[in-house]
Amino acid sequence: MFKFGGLNMEVYLDNAATTRPRDEVVEAMAWALSNLYANPSSLHKKGLEVEKEIRESRKIVAKALGCSEKEVVFTSGGTESNSLAINGVIGANRRLGNHIITTKTEHKSVLNSFNELSSKGFDVTYLDVDSLGFISLVQLKESIRPETILVSIMHANNETGTIQPINEIGEIIKSVNKNTFFHVDGIQGFGKIKFNVKQSNIDTYSLSGHKIHGPKGIGALYIRGGVKVQPFLLGGSQENNLRAGTENVPGIIGLGKAVSLKQEEQIEKMKELKTYMFDLLKSSIENIHFNNDNNDRFTPHIINVSLRGVRSEIMLHSLEQDGIYVSSGSACTSRKKDFSHVLKAMGLKNDLIDSAIRISISSTNTKEEIEYAVDRMKTHLYDLRKIIKR
Amino acid sequence: MFKFGGLNMEVYLDNAATTRPRDEVVEAMAWALSNLYANPSSLHKKGLEVEKEIRESRKIVAKALGCSEKEVVFTSGGTESNSLAINGVIGANRRLGNHIITTKTEHKSVLNSFNELSSKGFDVTYLDVDSLGFISLVQLKESIRPETILVSIMHANNETGTIQPINEIGEIIKSVNKNTFFHVDGIQGFGKIKFNVKQSNIDTYSLSGHKIHGPKGIGALYIRGGVKVQPFLLGGSQENNLRAGTENVPGIIGLGKAVSLKQEEQIEKMKELKTYMFDLLKSSIENIHFNNDNNDRFTPHIINVSLRGVRSEIMLHSLEQDGIYVSSGSACTSRKKDFSHVLKAMGLKNDLIDSAIRISISSTNTKEEIEYAVDRMKTHLYDLRKIIKR
Repeated sequence: MFKFGGLNMEVYLDNAATTRPRDEVVEAMAWALSNLYANPSSLHKKGLEVEKEIRESRKIVAKALGCSEKEVVFTSGGTESNSLAINGVIGANRRLGNHIITTKTEHKSVLNSFNELSSKGFDVTYLDVDSLGFISLVQLKESIRPETILVSIMHANNETGTIQPINEIGEIIKSVNKNTFFHVDGIQGFGKIKFNVKQSNIDTYSLSGHKIHGPKGIGALYIRGGVKVQPFLLGGSQENNLRAGTENVPGIIGLGKAVSLKQEEQIEKMKELKTYMFDLLKSSIENIHFNNDNNDRFTPHIINVSLRGVRSEIMLHSLEQDGIYVSSGSACTSRKKDFSHVLKAMGLKNDLIDSAIRISISSTNTKEEIEYAVDRMKTHLYDLRKIIKR
Repeated sequence: MFKFGGLNMEVYLDNAATTRPRDEVVEAMAWALSNLYANPSSLHKKGLEVEKEIRESRKIVAKALGCSEKEVVFTSGGTESNSLAINGVIGANRRLGNHIITTKTEHKSVLNSFNELSSKGFDVTYLDVDSLGFISLVQLKESIRPETILVSIMHANNETGTIQPINEIGEIIKSVNKNTFFHVDGIQGFGKIKFNVKQSNIDTYSLSGHKIHGPKGIGALYIRGGVKVQPFLLGGSQENNLRAGTENVPGIIGLGKAVSLKQEEQIEKMKELKTYMFDLLKSSIENIHFNNDNNDRFTPHIINVSLRGVRSEIMLHSLEQDGIYVSSGSACTSRKKDFSHVLKAMGLKNDLIDSAIRISISSTNTKEEIEYAVDRMKTHLYDLRKIIKR
């Protein structure tokens, strides 16, 4: 095993929670803050200059999604994108019915919107998942009814990286009910999976800047041309009347810059690092259980592993002493001390849920960092197992 | 008159549309982007560090408002703050009634929310204003009913700087119906008027970062302790369960920095510059009409003046050739070629509305810039009047 000299090493392996903005992104935003400060709604040329730069970012995002720039709406982040898609599509198409479908393993920003809709009288089907987090296409097909307005299924899960078969799902939905809309929460998928929104019968697709080395506070929503969406932020006519409020110009510029930075190369780098870590964990630590796998059915950035015998929070705090940052369950819900609803839906036993660690990789991590992290994980695990046994 | 040498002078007088972030704000944000990148919801210390810095910004904003930090919610901007206040208070208190009150001169982010509520069956009273934009306290008092849920009145108007008598308004509302909530759109008032939310019976007060030399994409809402608000962005438990979504950390840090920069000194500087420009316009240009005044009933940053005989758009584009940026009506609606609803509600005749220019000052402007702007305005006005007469 590689020897580690200093103790000041910092290894950030919580990239599914959020990523560090790239230096190019920070520079572009600082430039935008100081130079593109006019209001893009202003009639004078200083405003028009800003509008032009916003359009450049929109083109970059559209190109990455495989859609036209008119189909991209900028929002304040992934949660708002999901909310605008779900509530907006339902609000504009209520005459189509009262039934909506999602999965048990969605992010809280989708699940809580569905729970709220359920409390307002909508009939909600929550699809089950198997032990690796995949939905059943049979159950999906059987669930779609004539009065189903919307199916919302995430591209990749934020705790396990499970990639749902979006193409097949889209085909099934439209073949059973061509009027049913299909929303995909792409927040963990975008920038991790080679993908084109036009291939999958997708109506709306959400993404977030801070998951791909862009800034926090900015997101986008793809809305297929022709799909009617009811906005909830009313006021000015920004974003084609779909999202009022002065545009977050530095955020939009930062998102555009992040998206422009060779996503495909980053995916390859993540795959390499994930494989390296996966194999290293497997070969060097005994009695652990992987809650996901290392193949193309999962994103290249997440390893979810149960370090049996030690509660994940204890492991997390032990590792942070060594400058290693991982997650116990999803960051967005981890402050609440409840079980991961994702691992629970996958049917994992409590001891596996209780000891599950989410390691999430970025293309900026190194093999040396991974060796260090695995070494420290092993040491802490073996030490803690001894203490707990006593 | 002062002589101007070069032609490359740039004079930005559209500060009510948006302001240039201060260098300190840009630096703080760049630092936050690169260093405070962890997710504040993460359990590890890198997340906790970020949460601590968010709290520091919240304290700064709370101090400036005169409230406790628990009463401050960060949002994606002024439009979202207004929407959260209006729809959130109404949503959580529907049992109180079906009647809501606002004014005819509100910003579109308030007016369009009220129009939407009206279309959903709410009974809306739109208060009139006088020729300087002030509401009638008598009409307000007479409009409040037992079933009035909410009164929403802006602190200062974005086109004229008219400051509504918020203290008296708050007293009247609560004396007629103690259950009626009072929302104040403070987006043009915050940082322009010495003020404390606790003095005025205010329940909610919105503000925006980019109007006070902070960044775009960030705002805040004061919610008085005990006031129930129904959130519309659901998901994680951020912002005390009132606003889900990973926090816009660089935006929050930037807002905190902007608020911390001696607001009172800036107000004095703006007053000085406004007085200087007001007097200079008055003494040097003939046949113009001021649509607001230069006293404490108006904010220190806005001069709304009709340059009779020349359409405001023509003047705006003439001035931009000289590097001078002003607005014709409010930036947020100016792309639409309709009349200013504010000046119309004030009863101005069409020729005055049609030739109205909004000049909005920042404490970073100089007397030299103002002399240059007035000189160019006069030249263009006199030249254009001659052409139009022919």
